[in-house]
Amino acid sequence: MPLPQQIAPTIDDIRAAAEHIAPYATQTPLLESPHLNAIVGGRLLIKAEPLQRTGSFKFRGAFNTINQITEIERENGIIAYSSGNHAQGVAAAAEILGIDAVIVMPSDAPQIKIRNTRGYGAEVITYDRHKDDREAVAREISAARNLTMIRPYDDPRIIAGQATVALEAMAQLIGRDEKPDAVLCPCGGGGLVSGVAIAAKAAFPDVEVYAVEPAFFDDTARSLRQGMRVENDPAAQSFCDALLAPSPGELTFSIMQTHISSGLTVTDEQTSEAMRQAFSRLKLVVEPGGAVALAAALSGAIDCKNQTTVIVCSGGNADPRLFAEVLTQEARETIIPVT
Amino acid sequence: MPLPQQIAPTIDDIRAAAEHIAPYATQTPLLESPHLNAIVGGRLLIKAEPLQRTGSFKFRGAFNTINQITEIERENGIIAYSSGNHAQGVAAAAEILGIDAVIVMPSDAPQIKIRNTRGYGAEVITYDRHKDDREAVAREISAARNLTMIRPYDDPRIIAGQATVALEAMAQLIGRDEKPDAVLCPCGGGGLVSGVAIAAKAAFPDVEVYAVEPAFFDDTARSLRQGMRVENDPAAQSFCDALLAPSPGELTFSIMQTHISSGLTVTDEQTSEAMRQAFSRLKLVVEPGGAVALAAALSGAIDCKNQTTVIVCSGGNADPRLFAEVLTQEARETIIPVT
Repeated sequence: MPLPQQIAPTIDDIRAAAEHIAPYATQTPLLESPHLNAIVGGRLLIKAEPLQRTGSFKFRGAFNTINQITEIERENGIIAYSSGNHAQGVAAAAEILGIDAVIVMPSDAPQIKIRNTRGYGAEVITYDRHKDDREAVAREISAARNLTMIRPYDDPRIIAGQATVALEAMAQLIGRDEKPDAVLCPCGGGGLVSGVAIAAKAAFPDVEVYAVEPAFFDDTARSLRQGMRVENDPAAQSFCDALLAPSPGELTFSIMQTHISSGLTVTDEQTSEAMRQAFSRLKLVVEPGGAVALAAALSGAIDCKNQTTVIVCSGGNADPRLFAEVLTQEARETIIPVT
Repeated sequence: MPLPQQIAPTIDDIRAAAEHIAPYATQTPLLESPHLNAIVGGRLLIKAEPLQRTGSFKFRGAFNTINQITEIERENGIIAYSSGNHAQGVAAAAEILGIDAVIVMPSDAPQIKIRNTRGYGAEVITYDRHKDDREAVAREISAARNLTMIRPYDDPRIIAGQATVALEAMAQLIGRDEKPDAVLCPCGGGGLVSGVAIAAKAAFPDVEVYAVEPAFFDDTARSLRQGMRVENDPAAQSFCDALLAPSPGELTFSIMQTHISSGLTVTDEQTSEAMRQAFSRLKLVVEPGGAVALAAALSGAIDCKNQTTVIVCSGGNADPRLFAEVLTQEARETIIPVT
């Protein structure tokens, strides 16, 4: 499928995206906790995208993209494939814009994501993640029903939309007269972190931007080291369901090669601990994939001592049952007798 | 114990409090969810005090009060009694101001609250909630060690500090060119809701303000109906540990008689459901006592249809184990097969 202008968005594209989404998206706060700062010996400023419309940053890119399709494409409807957050972002944006949406989702996606996607009025078609090729499934339906594909990350309009996360965060820093040393951002296909890097470096050219991935899904870290796009082991497993893309996108990888300092990796255990810290210190519900950047800071995967570090917490669509399990692990480990 | 100027704070006192706490307190966001709006058929704007420093609104009043004690009182140190949120607010404010703090807490308070209070450098002394009189315990230590008592609610400086919750929320509404029909606010001793009522009515004289209490702890609702302060049954139980005050305060009751429309009551089951909705729709961790106002709206204890209603979610210091239990109830009840 040919892509519309396969070139990186500029800071002007990102500013235009911010204007288009402004009436519908939430300006999420930049949170800070003295306790989390004490853990790393520096300042952590957490961009709280769980508070975004649809519970993750994905609404930004989805709205910015769908808002730019042609009148005929609007009438025919759109299609997207997604494990859940892009699905909800696309479904909510399509609902606002009055466009029919079909979403192709893995049958084992968190139920909250499937339920919410239907709740936004989208038609959900499930597939078997271990047997079917989701792109092929979506392409087939797209061709048969003449639906415009809204890709999850490898599209400059998507990247420009996601980049507004950093455009906002940098403006919030400038408003407080502060300067970031680094930005840590979760990375699946790279749509978010590549946009974040463009926007962050436009405001602060010296800032370091890191892509954070779950262990065994470090395709971006390895691709950056090897100078070419490589894939993950198809048998790899992680509970970070939002970050299981097989490899970086073409466009996102070319942007990351220019703008990203390196990739960082965290284990699911470190991510669980970050979720618990976000619960107890920030009062924020963060899903596994949304918590990997915080995990990188808290686990020491990167040294944040005496630094000002912006942490993107990208989403909060966690299944209640899974979240309860993560919390109960903590309750078992840290029970302290009251004296 | 004589109280300093037992008269209601004015809107000027509240504005002064807002200035004093501004460098240390968080301007918490006013959140909105299309899903929650759909449940009530109106607009719910949620003031998210779990995101406040120390995880609840209590920091506001504590800082505003401690900031006004004399130099000699500062040198001698302060004391407070609290089930947990006032404890953390006082401990954190005292730490910022460089003042020694002793906190008297029930031995069965949520561990997260006891742990955090100690984490702010305070000395914690526990008592048996079923046997001891907490005020008597605190008064005895206060006299023996010459410590200034920071009362939990019945003090105009406390009330002015808590009122900044509504001062901020009303400014946020005015900034969006919106007008509230009603404000729903959790109520224990009444320090928060009485201040909120003064600030809300200063901005919007016609707004209705409701005090929301847990079932069996409806002392304020009954006191308002009877025109005199009445007490709860000492054997009453609720999981809303932050709202178990035995009766309204003297000063808070006199303010509530003037400014509060009426009291509303919700069951612990309705509050659990509100906590789950805050988790899944707002991505916000809300503790039981912090969720009663949202519960009143969602359960229909008050009709919010076609209204703009401000909901104060007052705190998020929930024990992980309890929160997991609340979430798992939902997982059991709402499991939907994926097709």
